[in-house]
Amino acid sequence: MLSRAKPNNTDKPKNEYHIHISNPKHMNLIESLNWRYATKAMTGELVPQPKIDLIMNATLLCPTSSGLQPFEVILISNKEMKEKILPIAHNQPVTVQSSHLMVFAAWDSYTTERINHHFTYLNQQRAMPDSTTDDFRNTTIALFAKQTKEQHFAHAAKQAYIGLGFALIAAALEKVDSTPMEGFDPEKLDNLLELNKKGLKSTCILALGYRDTAKDWLVKLKKIREPMSEFVTILS
Amino acid sequence: MLSRAKPNNTDKPKNEYHIHISNPKHMNLIESLNWRYATKAMTGELVPQPKIDLIMNATLLCPTSSGLQPFEVILISNKEMKEKILPIAHNQPVTVQSSHLMVFAAWDSYTTERINHHFTYLNQQRAMPDSTTDDFRNTTIALFAKQTKEQHFAHAAKQAYIGLGFALIAAALEKVDSTPMEGFDPEKLDNLLELNKKGLKSTCILALGYRDTAKDWLVKLKKIREPMSEFVTILS
Repeated sequence: MLSRAKPNNTDKPKNEYHIHISNPKHMNLIESLNWRYATKAMTGELVPQPKIDLIMNATLLCPTSSGLQPFEVILISNKEMKEKILPIAHNQPVTVQSSHLMVFAAWDSYTTERINHHFTYLNQQRAMPDSTTDDFRNTTIALFAKQTKEQHFAHAAKQAYIGLGFALIAAALEKVDSTPMEGFDPEKLDNLLELNKKGLKSTCILALGYRDTAKDWLVKLKKIREPMSEFVTILS
Repeated sequence: MLSRAKPNNTDKPKNEYHIHISNPKHMNLIESLNWRYATKAMTGELVPQPKIDLIMNATLLCPTSSGLQPFEVILISNKEMKEKILPIAHNQPVTVQSSHLMVFAAWDSYTTERINHHFTYLNQQRAMPDSTTDDFRNTTIALFAKQTKEQHFAHAAKQAYIGLGFALIAAALEKVDSTPMEGFDPEKLDNLLELNKKGLKSTCILALGYRDTAKDWLVKLKKIREPMSEFVTILS
């Protein structure tokens, strides 16, 4: 039988779940994740290009379902464009106070053309015959052919959120502040960025920049997570 | 007018997008992300508990929409349970060769009760009156009240994928191999884990363990990502 032991009693806070740091460099990860928060006011200071490059590279390296990479990033530092996005993003100040906005834009559908493009590129890069992946390719095409466009986009959007997770951590490790935002009108943003021409739809925005500690009400508040015992169920 | 400069010509591979590492510790992130891959064969070796703890802590620290944390993790090291999951996960070998399986299970719906529970807990933890967040709480309840249960789950599942991204990076930094899996029958897994009793539905599985280099066909193949120039569009 299973033991359904939980790491803690449910009334204990998460930080009583014992953290044994096995390697000093990893404290850096947890420290960085505790340091980060959804920044509500930014200074406008530019994030240096090397840090932006690193965040983009980390995001590109995120895994996606069948390796299809069904999302792109629109990286916006243009002031006019950020001002146009401001009302679309319900006037959230970081829209214009940020250094850069990353718009995560997912495929509106998994077309046979897109799937073929991926597998052909994959085989080219590996210097293998294009037929190498035929079984996998055909299974993938058949799988998506059974689904609606809505299902395609919902699936692609989830992959974009893995990328969002990668960008969030890369930024935190670089001590770059970030604000993930779903509070915007996606249709208006799609129109502004002409995403429909590329078969893309916006899923979320990540603002990158530096916290304005004096003006940010959230930076003063304790970061809260539910207790680990409510988050994780252990079947050991 | 916008300049729509791209970081590279489209025919250049991603690794020609210049990476300027501003701090030596950060090479570690990109190196770790290049080291990781969707492991297809694992040795069965156990991942030490401190590493598991760190991965769980990183996952718990992922941000979610309005801070609601609408997903949980079922952490499975039990051998019998992994054997039961094997056929549900289309007999993918890492299901049983892994050390642990993380099942990411998202809320099936955003109920008023769940939203209230979150805000009450938040205010308790911050020692603030429960009414402090009433505006935000009521807006959140009203927002989800307009949506279907399907929309709720689709939204919660995306948040779970941010957590998946966090777990993937934490594992890679710990030199723990991992395999994200969507190839399973979610209804059967939900039944096996009795997730419906908790108002949860499975979204993805992350297998954690150690690569079996001799038996893994994928470890020998070059990791491929699309060119950075196709991934990122720069509006500067």
